[in-house]
Amino acid sequence: MTARSATPASSAPVAPRLADVQAPVRDELDGVARELRRIVYDDSPLIAQVTRHLMAMKGKLFRPTIALLASATDGRPEPRITTLAAVLELMHVATLVHDDAVDHSALRRGLPTINALFNSQTSVIAGDFLYLRALRELATLGDLDALRVLTDASVEMTQGELRQLTKGDPLQFSEEDYEALIAAKTASLFRAACAVGALCGAAQYADSLSRYGQRLGMAFQIVDDLLDYTEAQEVTGKPMGLDLHERKMTLPLIAAMREMDGRARRRVEGLFASEVPSEADIHEVIGLVTENGGLDYARRRGEWFAQAAEEALADIPETAARSALIDAIAYVTERRS
Amino acid sequence: MTARSATPASSAPVAPRLADVQAPVRDELDGVARELRRIVYDDSPLIAQVTRHLMAMKGKLFRPTIALLASATDGRPEPRITTLAAVLELMHVATLVHDDAVDHSALRRGLPTINALFNSQTSVIAGDFLYLRALRELATLGDLDALRVLTDASVEMTQGELRQLTKGDPLQFSEEDYEALIAAKTASLFRAACAVGALCGAAQYADSLSRYGQRLGMAFQIVDDLLDYTEAQEVTGKPMGLDLHERKMTLPLIAAMREMDGRARRRVEGLFASEVPSEADIHEVIGLVTENGGLDYARRRGEWFAQAAEEALADIPETAARSALIDAIAYVTERRS
Repeated sequence: MTARSATPASSAPVAPRLADVQAPVRDELDGVARELRRIVYDDSPLIAQVTRHLMAMKGKLFRPTIALLASATDGRPEPRITTLAAVLELMHVATLVHDDAVDHSALRRGLPTINALFNSQTSVIAGDFLYLRALRELATLGDLDALRVLTDASVEMTQGELRQLTKGDPLQFSEEDYEALIAAKTASLFRAACAVGALCGAAQYADSLSRYGQRLGMAFQIVDDLLDYTEAQEVTGKPMGLDLHERKMTLPLIAAMREMDGRARRRVEGLFASEVPSEADIHEVIGLVTENGGLDYARRRGEWFAQAAEEALADIPETAARSALIDAIAYVTERRS
Repeated sequence: MTARSATPASSAPVAPRLADVQAPVRDELDGVARELRRIVYDDSPLIAQVTRHLMAMKGKLFRPTIALLASATDGRPEPRITTLAAVLELMHVATLVHDDAVDHSALRRGLPTINALFNSQTSVIAGDFLYLRALRELATLGDLDALRVLTDASVEMTQGELRQLTKGDPLQFSEEDYEALIAAKTASLFRAACAVGALCGAAQYADSLSRYGQRLGMAFQIVDDLLDYTEAQEVTGKPMGLDLHERKMTLPLIAAMREMDGRARRRVEGLFASEVPSEADIHEVIGLVTENGGLDYARRRGEWFAQAAEEALADIPETAARSALIDAIAYVTERRS
């Protein structure tokens, strides 16, 4: 994988870079970054210290990119999408901050989390602050349609999280459970990004764009869960095998378990039963998942959603924004972090 | 105190009971309880289990009572106040759930917290679920004015919490800091309750009612902080001296510190410096606070805000709702839990 990305084989298509996907909305993304800073601004130096760190965590602005592109697919994007895209990103960062508080994670995108820098208490309240500032901004804008789309998505995200936290034996988690979970936790916000984009200039394509967002989100999360099995911390910014450490069942393991013999299954069950799994146990299970076709299965499922996302764009006019949305699919499936 | 409440001296005015304050809006409060159940309803048995417990925690519906009374002060309350009052209560319960997650509290109102029953992870996400369901309900109602009032108040509440969490030496916490904190953490939501009430039938009294709510909230929190020094767990549902346990500076201690001699101050500093203060240390500091006039000072300050709250109602028509708002002040200052 490392070799391919560094020096792609001449025959293979080169995966689009994020910069390519973002090219049609480069200026608007600068506007989103400005809006983010404006919306979280606080004159207390202590709160400013927390939000400065959160802004450093904000990463690639991938969801705002999708929202901006969706709004531009019909050639007449409305300027308010910049603010709405910033609100969307803030709601996303709020969920990350609360996830980190829940998981007691120390690292996110290679940076220390708010947990690590401050404490998990501050993570909880800082996440609330971001959520509520984002929602207050929507109230100020007075955009009820966007408010409905974004609160629906965030309710769905928390329902997914709650179901995950309150459920019993992870080894009973089926592929159907997994897909319902990632639809709620991840795809809902990608769908909302597209729906909000459609509200701002492409209303007649709202259904197609929302379907695209949903499927892109499914592919995105499946790839994310694959990367946990395949990529080292230096690449992803978080430890490899973290999901196994945390006893989270994701698609590679679910698919591999179906093919495993009794001995291999017992190894997995042993890992899930242990209080603190060892690195050796985790490496062994990663090996078992690979041997039993779990990675291949998850890759195929990710590609299926990627293909379905592209099909959802069939009736969208052939604008630069549409091309970039198609590139976004390849970017998602080919990315390594 | 126990004797007075059980058999009031015939000469002392009898403090209003909560039932008296709630009498003019008894039917509407039943409606609020129904709306609460509707807004948090979820068909997942696991989420239903969490929300059932949260609904058992909801307590006295004091903030909804104030909102309903405010809407009725001009004799023509609008029915939507019932839903808005439920939204307000949900936002309040969400902050309690997150406070419990932050403080790792095991008890709230004598009931085990979500932390204790499930875990602090579930508290974080369950709090988000309540916040977001409440805000989605506002989006569905399409009531932008109420949305602005309630998101402003909840942003203020989280700012207060964040300042408290990220600040340094608690012993440097001044009376001014304390008042700014309780204004943000507590009074903002009482003010919002009155402002939302005013939006639903008493718009011309919005300023007076909001001022009343602000001052009532200040008195409410000062009394709450006093009860932590004076009342046993059997009465309040939480351990006496909890604030000292958690090294929180509240008004009784701030006021008493100004009067203490060097020896007494060093005892307080010792308690704040110790990793886990002993019961004996806490009892000693409670004694020092009492001897140095901290309880009396806080009582006077609470009474000052109570008086100011009553003055804010001067221009309100003499309705049953107005009388109940005045009774609410006495209820707040006389309550023991």
